[in-house]
Amino acid sequence: MRTITVALDAMGGDFGPHITVPAAVQALSIFPELKVILVGDESVLIPHLSTLGSYPNDRIHIEHTDRVIADTDKPSSVMRRSAGTSMRRAIDLVEEQTAQACVSGGNTGALMGLSRYRLKLLPGIERPALVSALPTRNGEKVWLLDLGANVSVNANTLFQFAVMGSALAEEHLHRSPRVAILNVGEEDIKGNDLVKDCAEMLQKTESINYIGFIEADQLLQDEADVVVCDGFVGNVCLKASEGVANLFLDRLKHHMLASKFRAWISKIIFSELFSELKQLNPDQYNGASLLGLRGIVIKSHGSADKTAIINAIIEAVHEVKRQVPSRISDRLETVLLERQN
Amino acid sequence: MRTITVALDAMGGDFGPHITVPAAVQALSIFPELKVILVGDESVLIPHLSTLGSYPNDRIHIEHTDRVIADTDKPSSVMRRSAGTSMRRAIDLVEEQTAQACVSGGNTGALMGLSRYRLKLLPGIERPALVSALPTRNGEKVWLLDLGANVSVNANTLFQFAVMGSALAEEHLHRSPRVAILNVGEEDIKGNDLVKDCAEMLQKTESINYIGFIEADQLLQDEADVVVCDGFVGNVCLKASEGVANLFLDRLKHHMLASKFRAWISKIIFSELFSELKQLNPDQYNGASLLGLRGIVIKSHGSADKTAIINAIIEAVHEVKRQVPSRISDRLETVLLERQN
Repeated sequence: MRTITVALDAMGGDFGPHITVPAAVQALSIFPELKVILVGDESVLIPHLSTLGSYPNDRIHIEHTDRVIADTDKPSSVMRRSAGTSMRRAIDLVEEQTAQACVSGGNTGALMGLSRYRLKLLPGIERPALVSALPTRNGEKVWLLDLGANVSVNANTLFQFAVMGSALAEEHLHRSPRVAILNVGEEDIKGNDLVKDCAEMLQKTESINYIGFIEADQLLQDEADVVVCDGFVGNVCLKASEGVANLFLDRLKHHMLASKFRAWISKIIFSELFSELKQLNPDQYNGASLLGLRGIVIKSHGSADKTAIINAIIEAVHEVKRQVPSRISDRLETVLLERQN
Repeated sequence: MRTITVALDAMGGDFGPHITVPAAVQALSIFPELKVILVGDESVLIPHLSTLGSYPNDRIHIEHTDRVIADTDKPSSVMRRSAGTSMRRAIDLVEEQTAQACVSGGNTGALMGLSRYRLKLLPGIERPALVSALPTRNGEKVWLLDLGANVSVNANTLFQFAVMGSALAEEHLHRSPRVAILNVGEEDIKGNDLVKDCAEMLQKTESINYIGFIEADQLLQDEADVVVCDGFVGNVCLKASEGVANLFLDRLKHHMLASKFRAWISKIIFSELFSELKQLNPDQYNGASLLGLRGIVIKSHGSADKTAIINAIIEAVHEVKRQVPSRISDRLETVLLERQN
């Protein structure tokens, strides 16, 4: 069994080592082949580890760093002064091939900038993209990208997102994924130049199963497997969906627990409803991948709890097993060849 | 009592006269001062009217037109060939001051283009914007604009949206509304040039109560009264919210009606939950206003049912009573004066 090593930015995210350390230890029990490198201040990490009792200490290591990148740091200043930070070191461990993937819940802009600078982009890719799989109404998944790595893009970049998303989804689905562009209407005349130009490129690309425009209210209806948009739109789409889902779940819980009788009745007859709705919340998943790099980088929510960090580590392991960067690279080569001919 | 006349594009929307005619008649019973002009093909409208039995026929008129604008017509071709269509005539009735407002569920691009061409923009406004009030978690409202009238805008236009939204919300709230810009993060460094440049303009404008950036998951949390964004982002945000809300309501209904016992129990203890969640669905309202024109134009959902059309007519009457265009004009003058000094 080949060892898979994941470098975890143990200082990143809103709660830091308080949850990253127990999450790392728990993830070890899921994959016997997993090793985790906790990257961060050892004077903080060691006490957290020691409170956990016994753990397979040959499969968990600490890589000491003194500094952290703050959420408020500008990407430009991060690039100049990243040496010695936990995020930079976690990425460097992937670059040095000591780890096969890294996971961080820190500053998204910094993570994208540093990953790009240290790991480099795949040939043919101009910008990395953040992608995540959202649950659809019938228990399937839809991969949405970009979720906020790029606040403005051109049609070429959006086209590359479609190629990358398609390669990622194909590894899960084992069939040619249906690829759509998020737009304000389904008709060809709708939308801005960005989506129209990208649609024209995708229509001409036979190796991508392009199905047309899709509106945001159809996103969870299993009408497409991959949906592409710029990072501003994708971020708003995801957060608006999470906002409504959380609001509805909150009100549901409030009504169900309004009295002992209701709580009792709800538990008997509506527990499956509650768990079904929780499953449908786009917020439930964690671990957006940064696609387009020569290495695997998983961005965890800043506010992720222990389960969410474990999910991000699971996603990292799956991407290593599926060799996502080389799959994307292969797919890109096919598409670029097709476009040249 | 001053008469208020609303011109209704009776052919617009997915269901046409089948629902616009009964909606118009029912709206008359809500406002004794209301007159409705049904604009469309009289050979279709008269039979629909005659099936309704008695109605105050001195308060309902038919303005005959032969043609309609299709949903798939390009705005550019609509502009050249709009004469004799129900939408064009409904707008013209406002231009001629025969009606004080018009309502249409037809092609959004055509409605915007024709309204702008016939009614003209208010001085200081470069683009009209579609705005709607969404329900917040605590029963308040948040006005979101633009919802899709402009798929790309500059910072000046976005600034004008903030001024218009603020004037509209102030008429409802009777206090200075909290104005925010929709962005991918709350920190000043987040976002694209559009939102950063607009933020700088709003920060310098004392007559607008600008509170900063807001993320899409906070939209329904009553943290702002007015939220501005470009029409592409606004449309995706609204539709993503509606999509999740409808999906959740659908699953809730499915579970509640899964057996007779459940339906009985649900009716007894969860009927208020269901109506509360329905109230929270952004889809429940109808009647987005096209702001920035020298007249009142209300866009109804294409798929609006009878109640939704009535809501759009109610919104038109309220805007006439509140003299929305002149309020916006006054507010703009104040802001422009402030920016000159």
